[in-house]
Amino acid sequence: MSRTEAGAVAHSESNPADCLFCKIARHEIPSDVVYEDERTLAFRDINPQAPVHVLVIPKRHISSLAELGEGDEELAGHLLAVASRVASALGVGEGFRVVGNCGETAGQSVFHLHMHVLGGRRLGWPPG
Amino acid sequence: MSRTEAGAVAHSESNPADCLFCKIARHEIPSDVVYEDERTLAFRDINPQAPVHVLVIPKRHISSLAELGEGDEELAGHLLAVASRVASALGVGEGFRVVGNCGETAGQSVFHLHMHVLGGRRLGWPPG
Repeated sequence: MSRTEAGAVAHSESNPADCLFCKIARHEIPSDVVYEDERTLAFRDINPQAPVHVLVIPKRHISSLAELGEGDEELAGHLLAVASRVASALGVGEGFRVVGNCGETAGQSVFHLHMHVLGGRRLGWPPG
Repeated sequence: MSRTEAGAVAHSESNPADCLFCKIARHEIPSDVVYEDERTLAFRDINPQAPVHVLVIPKRHISSLAELGEGDEELAGHLLAVASRVASALGVGEGFRVVGNCGETAGQSVFHLHMHVLGGRRLGWPPG
């Protein structure tokens, strides 16, 4: 591999057995779950940046948005639909932001795909 | 309708014939297109917040993330896959942020679903 961005490449090969969010998805590590279905889990961010700040993850290990395959599109869209549903359920359905970080320079710190859902305050621009 | 957030409700009933992004999708209004397929269009934001700042929209009018229906999940996921593909094509595939604003308090200004793709600089936290 000739890429110099070794961090991202290494992380994309991360092992689901050691993955924090895989462990949360399997309920091996507790989290403040706000929504769950067969394919996804939504739980509150432990370092919230807004009154409502939830992460929506697929239970299956996908390391990042860059690793979305052709067959993953419905699942990826389901994450967005769940994000909207969770925002509504938590009372911020009329005003919320969904954020997905891909790679360390964008702020991705756990290399298991996750979408942030933020609401409950006015959100500024630019988005970081 | 009992909601007091009249703006969001009114916008969700916006008319595709008058919608700016519908007109861009139909090429009636020019834009700096970076990707196009049958269902989606990606074009550069006219007020960029990062060296790479692109909007990915469905050609079909969906007013916001809150209006995603059950049958829209594959399309919504396709927007994320296109976002990742565009980031890669524009040289920021190793570090980009995808942002979707829903509602005026979250910064949504055009009520046609769109995902922002930002890259080419370090992106701060919180995301707005």
